Amino acid sequence: MEEMLIFGHKSPDTDTICSSIVMSDFQKKLGKKVKPVRLGEINKETKFALNYFGFDAPELINSVSEGQEVILVDHNEFSQSVDGIENAKIRMVVDHHRVCDFNTAEPLYYRAEPVGCTNTILLKMYKENGFEIDKKLAGLMLSAIISDTLLLKSPTKTDEDEKAVKELAKIADVDYMSYGLEMLKAGTDLSDYTAEELIALDCKKCELKDKKAKVAQVNTADIPEMMKRKAEFEKAIKKDIEDNDLDLFVFAITDIINSNSQAIVLGKETQIFEKGFNKTLEDNTAFLPGVVSRKKQILPVLQENA
Amino acid sequence: MEEMLIFGHKSPDTDTICSSIVMSDFQKKLGKKVKPVRLGEINKETKFALNYFGFDAPELINSVSEGQEVILVDHNEFSQSVDGIENAKIRMVVDHHRVCDFNTAEPLYYRAEPVGCTNTILLKMYKENGFEIDKKLAGLMLSAIISDTLLLKSPTKTDEDEKAVKELAKIADVDYMSYGLEMLKAGTDLSDYTAEELIALDCKKCELKDKKAKVAQVNTADIPEMMKRKAEFEKAIKKDIEDNDLDLFVFAITDIINSNSQAIVLGKETQIFEKGFNKTLEDNTAFLPGVVSRKKQILPVLQENA
Repeated sequence: MEEMLIFGHKSPDTDTICSSIVMSDFQKKLGKKVKPVRLGEINKETKFALNYFGFDAPELINSVSEGQEVILVDHNEFSQSVDGIENAKIRMVVDHHRVCDFNTAEPLYYRAEPVGCTNTILLKMYKENGFEIDKKLAGLMLSAIISDTLLLKSPTKTDEDEKAVKELAKIADVDYMSYGLEMLKAGTDLSDYTAEELIALDCKKCELKDKKAKVAQVNTADIPEMMKRKAEFEKAIKKDIEDNDLDLFVFAITDIINSNSQAIVLGKETQIFEKGFNKTLEDNTAFLPGVVSRKKQILPVLQENA
Repeated sequence: MEEMLIFGHKSPDTDTICSSIVMSDFQKKLGKKVKPVRLGEINKETKFALNYFGFDAPELINSVSEGQEVILVDHNEFSQSVDGIENAKIRMVVDHHRVCDFNTAEPLYYRAEPVGCTNTILLKMYKENGFEIDKKLAGLMLSAIISDTLLLKSPTKTDEDEKAVKELAKIADVDYMSYGLEMLKAGTDLSDYTAEELIALDCKKCELKDKKAKVAQVNTADIPEMMKRKAEFEKAIKKDIEDNDLDLFVFAITDIINSNSQAIVLGKETQIFEKGFNKTLEDNTAFLPGVVSRKKQILPVLQENA
């Protein structure tokens, strides 16, 4: 039996990394030969969670060969997936995003639910199958949900996510509020990243009609401090736009304490952003009060106004 | 709360019709306001099942308006779905086919499994939610699985389908072998259909690379009897090819007793079929021993050789 590879999206975040490890545990319980892998560097928040609960980071891969059996977690769009995905054999997807830019030649397992985090769905699957979740793994699943829902403050959060957090915190035996704040704060220590790294850390490519865009996001506890590096960011973004022939780049600097975002917006299609948010960019930036979720508050606005 | 519409694919078969009724019952148990509908005429096999277990056929619709909330069962490809699907709000999909030509603007529930029938998945969902299945509904679900797996003889059948059939037969209190044969035979009474109706009865559009194709299928207990109408079928197929600008039309006449098919193949791309099955068409036809499943034994062959 060949080894199936399990991975989340490029620019991996905590949910993507934890999902690949958790799904790997799940598949092993089903008797499958699998290996979790990742498609990019581990960020500091994820590193904190892995260290805290005693897990190693999955191995890095850049592409898969033709016919490789794979399981996708926390994404489905080919543009966010591994190089070579078009010719892989996709056996399963577990995800909480819209379905787009995805197709298979054969029937498969596909499980998506409109909840705040992939691990909320994974928890359900463990229960449906009567599988036990050990203390360490519960901690990892908890970390993913805290990350995706910004400690239950994001509008993407559902009742199921909230229940899952409480249930998993009990199994993991941690105080999720204090652990969660510590983990999120670990992720906001961005001082030793270059501007190039910061705009790539959590960055999603997306197609807006016939336009090519990227929406990147970083979490911070101090927007003004981050904005001191605005000129650096602009330079890095302009280079990315040129290198990748992009029409639009939105970089959202999100204040996870006060739940606002400052956006730096560049490209020849910035009017999509301006129209969508009814804002005039000033010096390439705009302040977005109450906006913390790329999936729920930024991407749909851009998609509707492209 | 607006009413959500639930429907399967065009050219509805027994699984598509039963899935829409069963999913409607499931959603009502969840407290949702829903209505099962259908996208085409009910075939005789389905009519037999509906009559046997005392259900009315869902209402016929031809299109949905913009923003209409919908649930898709037994299909996902937009080309097989209702007119206007691109602008509907797809809230859920339950299916057992590959994912293709499908996308949404928002996250949704998507549940697909590589089993022989949608109702095998629906049975699982009832159990996961602790919902009871009444006698009549069990009969409907049983009928769908018998239909899609040709009474468990199709290569698309999985162990889960077989278990589901046995479980549902118990609840429905029927002998599934004798009921199943009777139901399948009811579907093979094709004498009062015109050739045009027969090639449209269970017909799937598909894209083969940049080529447009249709693969239609009818079940029979007597291939030679059906082939007496070959000239009629060819005329109807040629008209469909012309009207819809098709590159290929495959009409499979499937002997459900002996598990073989006779294919009538027309269009300017018949070499895709000939290459795929390693057959030279004689007088537009070829005999395909052991071939009964469009999904597993015909479509993949055409897709790989386009």
